[in-house]
Amino acid sequence: MNDNQKLAQQERLDKQFAFALEIDKEKRIGRQTYCSDGDTLENDAEHAWHAALMAILLSEYANEPVDVFKVVKMLLIHDIVEIDAGDTYAYDDAGIATQAEREQKAAERIYNLLPDDQAQELMALWQEFEALATPEAKYAKVMDNLQPAMLNAATNGRAWKEHEVKLSKILKRNENTEAGAAVLWQYGLKHFVEPHVAQGNIQNDVPNKPQ
Amino acid sequence: MNDNQKLAQQERLDKQFAFALEIDKEKRIGRQTYCSDGDTLENDAEHAWHAALMAILLSEYANEPVDVFKVVKMLLIHDIVEIDAGDTYAYDDAGIATQAEREQKAAERIYNLLPDDQAQELMALWQEFEALATPEAKYAKVMDNLQPAMLNAATNGRAWKEHEVKLSKILKRNENTEAGAAVLWQYGLKHFVEPHVAQGNIQNDVPNKPQ
Repeated sequence: MNDNQKLAQQERLDKQFAFALEIDKEKRIGRQTYCSDGDTLENDAEHAWHAALMAILLSEYANEPVDVFKVVKMLLIHDIVEIDAGDTYAYDDAGIATQAEREQKAAERIYNLLPDDQAQELMALWQEFEALATPEAKYAKVMDNLQPAMLNAATNGRAWKEHEVKLSKILKRNENTEAGAAVLWQYGLKHFVEPHVAQGNIQNDVPNKPQ
Repeated sequence: MNDNQKLAQQERLDKQFAFALEIDKEKRIGRQTYCSDGDTLENDAEHAWHAALMAILLSEYANEPVDVFKVVKMLLIHDIVEIDAGDTYAYDDAGIATQAEREQKAAERIYNLLPDDQAQELMALWQEFEALATPEAKYAKVMDNLQPAMLNAATNGRAWKEHEVKLSKILKRNENTEAGAAVLWQYGLKHFVEPHVAQGNIQNDVPNKPQ
């Protein structure tokens, strides 16, 4: 390796480690989901880890064949934008109105800490996730929704109760879940959602709730 | 799908979700590394997420070609055993003496929550990581060591100072890092370790420290 090549490698490494250090901040971005201890609110890094591992374990149920590694990459990075844009709670309508713009700006700043090729690759992966058009994005989104539903159900519906979440909102949020993994949607509906509708932890505003 | 098949699928899903919920506890297993805010100790789930993402970004520097997805899976699961066995600090000699036995027992309990095929797959992956014999395990171990070194360096060496860590211990811990990714070992030595030896945050007990 000549001196120019060494310098180029050094610059590339500096950019990669600048990004690696920056994303550490994701560990301090709080979510509205309680962990299984029932008392600690989850953060984005924990959520990404958990959803990525679940994606590996449950891939047999994706409606269409998926590149599981691509799904895992999507899930590991999907909340990095929240370092700048903050977590927008799934049932916060006002926040959702400005979410896309805030997150786009964040993506441009944070991903561009990386060398260009990697910045473009991760940005494209994040945009693919957001667009929900490919089998991988649809399946990744199932994990993004199923993981907190599992935790909410395991913690006596505490987060649902505190936010007075309505069943119609959950069904709306999950309108693509069945398209990503129908078996998992049916499982989640039966084991996570319906018992908490029955117990009143989720407000039932849907007269004829789905079977 | 007939009734028997439905029942088998239901049992499989129950096992998979029992495991998915159990591993949530990894978020409450504390480590001895401070996050980049300089004040919050990291937990195992955060560390696994961070190391897995770094493995994706830095795979070009692995000494041997690696199956990056396999590395990522290893890193996502590598600390699950600590749910039962606890985190053994890298420089805690007494804890290290009983670590293997405690972790083996933990692996048997936790992985066997899964359906047999997945339990065997993840157990094998964890054992491969621990054995440090394959290119994937060696490269994964580099991330397991480099990620906390990066954070320790970024937080003024606080964890190194608090534990009065000696340079010889760091070099011993990293004896395989050069074999996994020589470029990253050199980078980490120059940017993370040596400045903190010079500042006295790492105790220099090695008269002729490596160049």
